[in-house]
Amino acid sequence: MRLLLLSNSTAPGRRYLEHATDEIAALLDGARSLLFVPYALADHAGYTAQVAAALAPLGVTVTGAHAVPDQAAAVREAEAVFVGGGNSFRLLKALHERGLAPAIRERVTAGDLPYLGSSAGTNMACPTLRTTNDMPIVQPPTFEALGLVPFQINPHYLDAKPDTAHMGESRAERLEQFLEENDVPVVGLREGTWLRREGDRLTLGGIAAGALLFRRGGQEPEELAPGADLSPLLTERHRFDAPAAAQG
Amino acid sequence: MRLLLLSNSTAPGRRYLEHATDEIAALLDGARSLLFVPYALADHAGYTAQVAAALAPLGVTVTGAHAVPDQAAAVREAEAVFVGGGNSFRLLKALHERGLAPAIRERVTAGDLPYLGSSAGTNMACPTLRTTNDMPIVQPPTFEALGLVPFQINPHYLDAKPDTAHMGESRAERLEQFLEENDVPVVGLREGTWLRREGDRLTLGGIAAGALLFRRGGQEPEELAPGADLSPLLTERHRFDAPAAAQG
Repeated sequence: MRLLLLSNSTAPGRRYLEHATDEIAALLDGARSLLFVPYALADHAGYTAQVAAALAPLGVTVTGAHAVPDQAAAVREAEAVFVGGGNSFRLLKALHERGLAPAIRERVTAGDLPYLGSSAGTNMACPTLRTTNDMPIVQPPTFEALGLVPFQINPHYLDAKPDTAHMGESRAERLEQFLEENDVPVVGLREGTWLRREGDRLTLGGIAAGALLFRRGGQEPEELAPGADLSPLLTERHRFDAPAAAQG
Repeated sequence: MRLLLLSNSTAPGRRYLEHATDEIAALLDGARSLLFVPYALADHAGYTAQVAAALAPLGVTVTGAHAVPDQAAAVREAEAVFVGGGNSFRLLKALHERGLAPAIRERVTAGDLPYLGSSAGTNMACPTLRTTNDMPIVQPPTFEALGLVPFQINPHYLDAKPDTAHMGESRAERLEQFLEENDVPVVGLREGTWLRREGDRLTLGGIAAGALLFRRGGQEPEELAPGADLSPLLTERHRFDAPAAAQG
């Protein structure tokens, strides 16, 4: 199985996908075409054009899934797939309603199709949508996602409260709430970082800021540096809907 | 129908609910007991104790819904109900699974039970969960909520991008995505503000920062000042799941 899961598609001062060009080229490994899934944004054609322009320097031709008559067939014939960011709920609804979820899951888990995700597309690689930052603007038929890794990822991880006048929860507090209800590790990917899976090997990449690993149990999250080998996360047990304690 | 819908439960430097004490007293209007719905947080007993302490100065006795054998019956007998903040998904799941949603909706819409909500409890007063800021840590059976008002509310509304290094969407961008999929007005309640409904009359209250009204159509959101009469929002038509344009 070959995955590249980006926290974000655009780094400050860089062009779309530019910060990860080398990693994307390594993932695509000579592929000449790519199927793009644009459903996280409303403007499918415009979004596909943006991706096509970004990947043209790699010699890759991009087709938008919205533009083909049989999307599941397009997945079966693709050399690589990219699921782009935007709104995760809108994206997951489309993946289920258009038959893309089983088609992508089958070929990617068979090691037959490299998968590139950014932001919401990275959320989709998890077992569920449950650690997205997005607003639930539409209702997907289920929160179950592609399950290309067995743990959860929180993209765009932010360390502090965004604003001291803001009385909502911090990101870490939100993830603690997730862990109250689910016994599943969560990797908080800071901006500019990514996860790379090659078969049974999982590695953190990107800028020095790195990532955080959250687990149930109340201890501080673990700091992860670029290059960290996270392969043990691929075999760890997880339990969704397992409340932490008797909630009197 | 009598509602008080707070953006936040705690203002900077103030005790829990302190910033809205006068409004809460006006809503309760002499009620001596209140049923508290604690399900947005994991610690139901601790949360109920916090609310009991905050409302004791008003002479109100607080019962936690988790502590009564028949919760729907408790709603039928209540003098007032308070749905507290925390995680909206966890709260909505509990409201549906425990039979609280129809019981609360029936008495509140009949004008028979004053409703106090803060943060997630304010989200619950809307037709759906779709403009919450919370993480979808559990999957509720539906996104449909209590529908005590016909429009959507975004509590804890934040004006700017929380951090310029953060490449995720701003709050306004998230609400624009909501409006791409739904033709429903959204009131963005800044911290320290609230909505008060008395029958057919809806008013904005709280600090001078006020609120923003978002509508489909691309124009700038409308600034609303404390005291603004928003009653027309109570009769305006709304359409969920109505994409803005052909999404080619």
